[in-house]
Amino acid sequence: MNIFIIGIGLIGGSFAKDIKRLRPESRIYGIDTKPAHEEEALSLGIIDLKSSYDELHLADMVIVMVPVDAMVAELPKILDAVNDDCVVFDGGSTKSLVCKTVADHPKRRNYLSAHPIAGTEFSGPSAAIENLYAGKTNIICEVEKTAFKLQEKALELFHDMGMRICYMNPEAHDKHIAYVSHLSHISSFMLGKTVIEKEKNERDIFDMAGSGFESTVRLAKSSPAMWTPIFKHNKENVLDALSEYIQNLQDFKQLLENDDYGGIYNEMTDTNRIREILKGIPLNK
Amino acid sequence: MNIFIIGIGLIGGSFAKDIKRLRPESRIYGIDTKPAHEEEALSLGIIDLKSSYDELHLADMVIVMVPVDAMVAELPKILDAVNDDCVVFDGGSTKSLVCKTVADHPKRRNYLSAHPIAGTEFSGPSAAIENLYAGKTNIICEVEKTAFKLQEKALELFHDMGMRICYMNPEAHDKHIAYVSHLSHISSFMLGKTVIEKEKNERDIFDMAGSGFESTVRLAKSSPAMWTPIFKHNKENVLDALSEYIQNLQDFKQLLENDDYGGIYNEMTDTNRIREILKGIPLNK
Repeated sequence: MNIFIIGIGLIGGSFAKDIKRLRPESRIYGIDTKPAHEEEALSLGIIDLKSSYDELHLADMVIVMVPVDAMVAELPKILDAVNDDCVVFDGGSTKSLVCKTVADHPKRRNYLSAHPIAGTEFSGPSAAIENLYAGKTNIICEVEKTAFKLQEKALELFHDMGMRICYMNPEAHDKHIAYVSHLSHISSFMLGKTVIEKEKNERDIFDMAGSGFESTVRLAKSSPAMWTPIFKHNKENVLDALSEYIQNLQDFKQLLENDDYGGIYNEMTDTNRIREILKGIPLNK
Repeated sequence: MNIFIIGIGLIGGSFAKDIKRLRPESRIYGIDTKPAHEEEALSLGIIDLKSSYDELHLADMVIVMVPVDAMVAELPKILDAVNDDCVVFDGGSTKSLVCKTVADHPKRRNYLSAHPIAGTEFSGPSAAIENLYAGKTNIICEVEKTAFKLQEKALELFHDMGMRICYMNPEAHDKHIAYVSHLSHISSFMLGKTVIEKEKNERDIFDMAGSGFESTVRLAKSSPAMWTPIFKHNKENVLDALSEYIQNLQDFKQLLENDDYGGIYNEMTDTNRIREILKGIPLNK
């Protein structure tokens, strides 16, 4: 089986590592806009050979793991180039615009819209890790628009990688993910900004960071090149989530200004429910 | 050596575990307002015997690890009860009010004001872990007000536990910690609240939480009984930090409303500096 991975950073590279273990007979072709990433992936043994769109007709499976703005630009060209028995799936963090972009493409049936929810705050081929996806959720959108045999080929791989499959429409995906993932990133980036601005002496942050700051601010290490287009694609949902978050912070501030410590206690007690909700979620390291 | 630990939850219990290893000849007396905590600590072997204030005159060292509102109420009584050669130190997350409370106490010289910056989101004696404090920072306030020989006794223990010592005045401590620790907790609690309110179907949170939410919201599992008095003690600093955080979130929202994606990219790139700042900080699990 010829498998092409377009975008061989953390996400694409981690797919490659699992495929090497699970489908040892397959050849993995790598394509990346950064020649340094291609070289690194090759020397790390993540891909078997460097390739280009000219060879896409050889592919049995194409895995597209690029930022979502590149996704809407590239996906139609990729579908143009593949053969009829090839399945193309992506891993973009927003789904509505991507699905709309290829809705009328003559090869729409070759595309499966996916979002494997996994990652770390690092990037590039050297950040790729085996079993990143085991136990994680993979959200599949508009599954009925993909040819049955091609659905099967992709879903079998996801199954073997240990992913849990969840079907959703693109609009519901984008709305939920704005709250559960995109808002977390903004909250973390702005926390980092607030602390850096105040603590001009960075040594003080370092010295005092033991009590929870480092985990809360972890996502502020994430790639701006990946995240800027996500916020652009999901603007309306992210604005809704952000408005509600700011309102909740203002309400908390008001309770504190009013010395309403009973109210503050209750807010925290209500939110402690998150313990039970999160119990059993595999923690990404 | 007779060591009394008042408040034998996560923080006090973790002290006890290290002391058992480092000072095997010492007897550890435990005092807690919750009889169930005393029993649990005894059955887990964290303390050697249950005790009460009536026996405090036997103490060579008293470690007070109670919420900061209980601290200001109890610390004067504890100092009243100890003998002249006993060192009393605390681990409260705010320092100004505690230091003010005992400023004129006749046994002020027996007290060392400390804040070992470590913890997890769990609580109670069963949450206590060995080596919680190794490599962590312990902030000492007003060290010059403690009798020299008593400073030495406490600092030797901190050293043997592997802590890094940092001296600061109580006002500077409370200001810095509002940004680096207290704000992280509010940001996390309100993130949890926002997501829970939106996602009435908790299964959806569970299914989609792989991408960063669970680490960003970790602190929302923290104890309201511990954190409410912290926000009360440090009200003015916390309000400052919270105002700046809300302002930064509003600025980010404005950039998104204006489709200023260059601005959003730059915000994130600037904050990526947190990678270098945090490098080397031991991560609490």
